[in-house]
Amino acid sequence: MANPTAAMLVIGDEILSGRTRDSNMYFLAGELTKHGIDLKEVRVVNDDAPAIINAVQALSARFDHVFTSGGIGPTHDDITADCIAAAFDAHIDVRADARALLEAHYKATGLELNTARLRMARIPDGAVLIDNPVSTAPGFTIENVHVMAGVPAVFEAMVAGLLPTLIGGAPLMSQSVRVMRGEGEIAGTLGALAAEFSDLSIGCYPFHTDGVYGANIVVRGSDGARVNAAVTRLSQELDV
Amino acid sequence: MANPTAAMLVIGDEILSGRTRDSNMYFLAGELTKHGIDLKEVRVVNDDAPAIINAVQALSARFDHVFTSGGIGPTHDDITADCIAAAFDAHIDVRADARALLEAHYKATGLELNTARLRMARIPDGAVLIDNPVSTAPGFTIENVHVMAGVPAVFEAMVAGLLPTLIGGAPLMSQSVRVMRGEGEIAGTLGALAAEFSDLSIGCYPFHTDGVYGANIVVRGSDGARVNAAVTRLSQELDV
Repeated sequence: MANPTAAMLVIGDEILSGRTRDSNMYFLAGELTKHGIDLKEVRVVNDDAPAIINAVQALSARFDHVFTSGGIGPTHDDITADCIAAAFDAHIDVRADARALLEAHYKATGLELNTARLRMARIPDGAVLIDNPVSTAPGFTIENVHVMAGVPAVFEAMVAGLLPTLIGGAPLMSQSVRVMRGEGEIAGTLGALAAEFSDLSIGCYPFHTDGVYGANIVVRGSDGARVNAAVTRLSQELDV
Repeated sequence: MANPTAAMLVIGDEILSGRTRDSNMYFLAGELTKHGIDLKEVRVVNDDAPAIINAVQALSARFDHVFTSGGIGPTHDDITADCIAAAFDAHIDVRADARALLEAHYKATGLELNTARLRMARIPDGAVLIDNPVSTAPGFTIENVHVMAGVPAVFEAMVAGLLPTLIGGAPLMSQSVRVMRGEGEIAGTLGALAAEFSDLSIGCYPFHTDGVYGANIVVRGSDGARVNAAVTRLSQELDV
């Protein structure tokens, strides 16, 4: 059976302006691969309501899961929760369960649960909360969309709690072969092998170090025996 | 006048599988910001023809420029050039100008210009070549799409050559204020300021270090005087 598919939606001006280098995409890609969910597409959009709503609707219709990061804090530019609600035509307001979490947290820390912070309890009707063990304010899942924070430590903790609840498939196995020859030398061999092992993904990633051309050939697939067979053949044919 | 808009399309299984952490997006975002071109969306897709073609058509129709990275090497998984041609219904084959560049390069290095390497001279009719000072094989521009390599050193060199040929707008000015208070404390002030300075983008990026909550507030806009005015007001109101 084919693995479940997924897309990610990264929300935030700071990525598109070049201020921040995204790390959540790299983290999620690795975790999904281990869990047997195939990440098929990533989109990055601004803190802009139509852009977020359109992307969520497009991705949610095409993939089994959509994971979002960013835009669920207390400030004016945190518009993700309301956009997700709009995308699914769901009612959204401060919800009692999320509010209770925040009340307990701010009571314990001695800070005021003011209007801004209460925004973080805005959860669409029908959504299931995603636990935030770092800073309490929850994410949520509605339909097939999992809405999480952009701060990497919080995003990673939310993913760690969420993923075991999602049905995965066969984890993707991966082996690589390093060749100290240019891509152009080995492309013929690789192409023939890729055609024969069409159930596997065979990628070629060139590098250029100290004037020497080389390539890492990465063979990926969910059947470990097939990956082994392809790598063995590759090593023989390229004599490495 | 509003700045030109842009999207980026990153092509490659290695990003979506979590094997490689993308750096081209971060690089391009910074360069475009300096050049006054507004990066509005990024998409990452697999080495998959329908995914590439659909994304190129969608982004090319919506933005002034589309920048792609990846998939223009000599191996079987390098399908970007053919997909771009298909997206614009353009004829593609080995083109004399690109072939001449490769012939000179491989003659100088003593390597054979074999069938695989000749694939890198496949350029759609009507496209303009993009110079590759690192490893010769060119990128190209067709319509409003700029097709470049995925290897970061090559991508960055291509961008450096290409950008000065594109009309930019006002570079985005950016100033930031660091506040050692949680987002929830300052959200009200920020929201009021964002409403008043609606021509600027005011983002709030929280952090949590050694048990202390803080936030970097970033004010961006193309009018430096307005950015200064907003930052001055912000510093007064937050007393930093």
